[in-house]
Amino acid sequence: MSAKIGEMLTEKLKKQKNDIVPLLSDLNKISLIEGKSFEVCSKAKDELPLICGNPLLVFSNKNTSKINSELKVGVLFSGGPASGGHNVVVGLYDALKEMNPKSQVVGFLNGPDGLLKSEYKILTDDDINNVRNQGGFYLLGTSRTKFEKESDMQKCYETIQKLQLDGLLIIGGDDSNTNAAHLANYLKKSNSKTSVVGIPKTIDGDLAYLPYLQTSFGFYTASMTYSEMVGNICRDLPSSRKIWHFVKLMGRSASWITLEVAFQTQPNVALIGEEIKQKNMTLSQVIDMVCDVIEKRYSSGKKYGVVLIPEGIVEFIPEIKNLIQAINKAIVNIGNENFLKMHISERREKVIIELSQENERLFASLPYSVQNGLLSGLDPHGNVQVSQIASDVLIMDLVTERLHKKGIKLTTQAHFYGYDGRCGYPTWFDATYTYNLGRAASILVAYRKSGYMVTINKLHNDFDSWQVQAIPLAGMMNVEERKGKESLVISKYLVDLNSNAFKEFEKNRDKWAIEDSYLCPGPIQFFGDDSLVKSKSITMMLNG
Amino acid sequence: MSAKIGEMLTEKLKKQKNDIVPLLSDLNKISLIEGKSFEVCSKAKDELPLICGNPLLVFSNKNTSKINSELKVGVLFSGGPASGGHNVVVGLYDALKEMNPKSQVVGFLNGPDGLLKSEYKILTDDDINNVRNQGGFYLLGTSRTKFEKESDMQKCYETIQKLQLDGLLIIGGDDSNTNAAHLANYLKKSNSKTSVVGIPKTIDGDLAYLPYLQTSFGFYTASMTYSEMVGNICRDLPSSRKIWHFVKLMGRSASWITLEVAFQTQPNVALIGEEIKQKNMTLSQVIDMVCDVIEKRYSSGKKYGVVLIPEGIVEFIPEIKNLIQAINKAIVNIGNENFLKMHISERREKVIIELSQENERLFASLPYSVQNGLLSGLDPHGNVQVSQIASDVLIMDLVTERLHKKGIKLTTQAHFYGYDGRCGYPTWFDATYTYNLGRAASILVAYRKSGYMVTINKLHNDFDSWQVQAIPLAGMMNVEERKGKESLVISKYLVDLNSNAFKEFEKNRDKWAIEDSYLCPGPIQFFGDDSLVKSKSITMMLNG
Repeated sequence: MSAKIGEMLTEKLKKQKNDIVPLLSDLNKISLIEGKSFEVCSKAKDELPLICGNPLLVFSNKNTSKINSELKVGVLFSGGPASGGHNVVVGLYDALKEMNPKSQVVGFLNGPDGLLKSEYKILTDDDINNVRNQGGFYLLGTSRTKFEKESDMQKCYETIQKLQLDGLLIIGGDDSNTNAAHLANYLKKSNSKTSVVGIPKTIDGDLAYLPYLQTSFGFYTASMTYSEMVGNICRDLPSSRKIWHFVKLMGRSASWITLEVAFQTQPNVALIGEEIKQKNMTLSQVIDMVCDVIEKRYSSGKKYGVVLIPEGIVEFIPEIKNLIQAINKAIVNIGNENFLKMHISERREKVIIELSQENERLFASLPYSVQNGLLSGLDPHGNVQVSQIASDVLIMDLVTERLHKKGIKLTTQAHFYGYDGRCGYPTWFDATYTYNLGRAASILVAYRKSGYMVTINKLHNDFDSWQVQAIPLAGMMNVEERKGKESLVISKYLVDLNSNAFKEFEKNRDKWAIEDSYLCPGPIQFFGDDSLVKSKSITMMLNG
Repeated sequence: MSAKIGEMLTEKLKKQKNDIVPLLSDLNKISLIEGKSFEVCSKAKDELPLICGNPLLVFSNKNTSKINSELKVGVLFSGGPASGGHNVVVGLYDALKEMNPKSQVVGFLNGPDGLLKSEYKILTDDDINNVRNQGGFYLLGTSRTKFEKESDMQKCYETIQKLQLDGLLIIGGDDSNTNAAHLANYLKKSNSKTSVVGIPKTIDGDLAYLPYLQTSFGFYTASMTYSEMVGNICRDLPSSRKIWHFVKLMGRSASWITLEVAFQTQPNVALIGEEIKQKNMTLSQVIDMVCDVIEKRYSSGKKYGVVLIPEGIVEFIPEIKNLIQAINKAIVNIGNENFLKMHISERREKVIIELSQENERLFASLPYSVQNGLLSGLDPHGNVQVSQIASDVLIMDLVTERLHKKGIKLTTQAHFYGYDGRCGYPTWFDATYTYNLGRAASILVAYRKSGYMVTINKLHNDFDSWQVQAIPLAGMMNVEERKGKESLVISKYLVDLNSNAFKEFEKNRDKWAIEDSYLCPGPIQFFGDDSLVKSKSITMMLNG
């Protein structure tokens, strides 16, 4: 049999060591310059007293003091995978070995669980060379475990002490970095000298802190993978000329991915959850908005189009949010265990009698599959499983029904892209960004800095202008209600309707709705012209 | 805003004229050598008397007689889009203009409809340069219209006469090429000198005639697009370590795409419809087969995996096929129009009373969404809409239920890839193959050959060994029952269980089931190393 593409591309990208340029090339010439202080909320001052005084740190190339300590640094992945994660570990490893060949990287297995249970492996050259520029988190695995109890913190402390770690990198999203902040404070309190450093990961794009943190890694690779698929559909539209495609895109609450894919493909409709919320739109108004575009296109003979739908849209429609809360309450009253034992028809009956007339009417108006999703019981956190709601089918079915009544018969097709974009080979941008985040983290550990997140500033400028920084985790934190109580968290960065990116979208969408302005970005390219290979996120470029 | 990838890649590939090498480079040196005669069935002799004597034609570079006639050639797309279609038109146009700059290409709009209604455009240099190496059929559009009545043939004849066409290219699959054969015969009978030439298109891979026609264009690009997505999922599996993915792949009845994606990604399970049929398996046995792999993996601690499911699988399970026929009959008895007016619960009631006890039991065992799919009425051909059956959800739900009873709780995710793979930028293979098919077709027209399909032989060898041929459409045809009567058709080429490709799959699948042998082929590459850019289908390479 002929050689397989997967084997060839994997090997080729592994060996592309020289294509990923280190920003902090000479580790003998690094100093950390203290920058501005961050405002810290009072709850952070209470809960994170030992790290809340951290100022901004700016990496500079002007020092000549050699960093050559032998270091032992742990690393773990937390939450859903994102492309570039492996390169964080590779960058960390390369830098530590450059400083001192005796240094070690300890990889914790299965995410935070590995730290709790002291399950790990000491990484070797082979381990590292095998995952260079490779997608996924498979070198170590990941999990969503949080350190919520004091006893969890104590277990982490014990593992860290046992292994005599100089540092620990937590590669994760908003929740994982919240964890990192608490752990950093706990370790200081316990007189541990271990530095805890957070690395900004998530495909959702909802972890940002402007102007210091512009984007999390993995967002661009995921967005371009989905854009390839949506772009192919966009080429299909004027070819077969008869189908309306409803495409749900991953991204949890935030609509950033949908916005980026919209810029890359110029679809007829892209729903932005944050806008729907701000305008306090009803489900019916959202459906009207989509129907309006479809009708306009029909009247000019175009019986085809594409609608992008962010995964979290239902949470942004106030009446649906109310309904979800009411169902949540009803299931709590029944008891989730009892509820799960019931047949679906019994579940429906028991829930409906608990609903207000208004909610009952709304529930009854939803497609059957969506009703079933809402009745699939509570998740481990005690919430209705919003992710079980097929929001693509919800919008698609309601639009189809409304237009059918007006005599317009749609041919439709639903799609969901999400899991297929988390583990692709990282783009040049994500591969380079992450390699340098890992590299910079090693320096923070060498300088015993804890409670920081490593970031790179000026990502929208040329590579030569990229500026490595470390921002204090405590400064990123706010108080929000979680599970009914005030908690200290890193706020999700949702689509800002005043941002340049949203305004640019607003300016173009009416044109995209009616004209066929479709673009087909095609598959991510790793070789050839810089204009293609070294591309960056349009939303990031616009938001600067 | 920064330049958009879609615009840049489109422009870049449009200009890559020189990367697509013409096989018949010097059109002054072509001759057609008559090869072997084909056996023709008696029904073809009856229905296609004027083209059934066509022998094989082999293109040779040994002539020196200049072809310089001014020709006017029509072209149309038929059926679903496939990557490379535009390059057929580009190759045709380039060759005709090389022979004589006054020659013209007439593009019929919206597929066969354009020929029936005489809707067309005369293609210009700009039209051609805009679609060079671009996916989709959007230059002209397509449709699934067939010429079934004598009056349709007459309308085609009138359009062809009015335009004084020297030739007509029909770019389509098995049905469209069956149409092409009948039209070729009809035109000869009407004393038209117009050559009708078929071009083998379909992503499904079910149009082949070994050894003359090894693969249809579009199959490889579609397969590699799906393989990218499945490969990304394969990288996610050992990263998040908790989800079973059930992936439905397009391909109508044939499981070729599933087989190709299996070679490219090495999944835990790939169901092959043709094998299920040959082994006369029940639905329950298919579910057992999948459960068996999942249980084995669970027992070694692996709670994740991926199952590939060909779109047409339900037609291959005899008991499901029987059930579909029984439901078909029931709906015919009720009357499809009446049936469609009924609420879904009434439809269910009316159908169930018409089913045998055995069928009723089977129907009741199916997931609700699948039952609804079966009750969605008949298609324009009078058949239950098998494509409406979510076979991924069917298999996924039944597997989940069965394992749940054994105490194994699965986390699952369904996917469907299909429409997103029909219109991508063609791979080098599809771009080159189609350009040369279009080029060769121009020569058939110049030599007034009609009732042929252009093919390229030895595609599995180096490009320099590729051999252009034309095979008689009549020789490809067989008698099959369609809508209850014997019809002359081009048989679908389904997966052959004695083929090298299937045997290679059989040899490897037990290993792939248990070990994590996953491959991640990544996105299609257009630039750089030939080993990646000029790759070919593994099933084609194996079947030779």
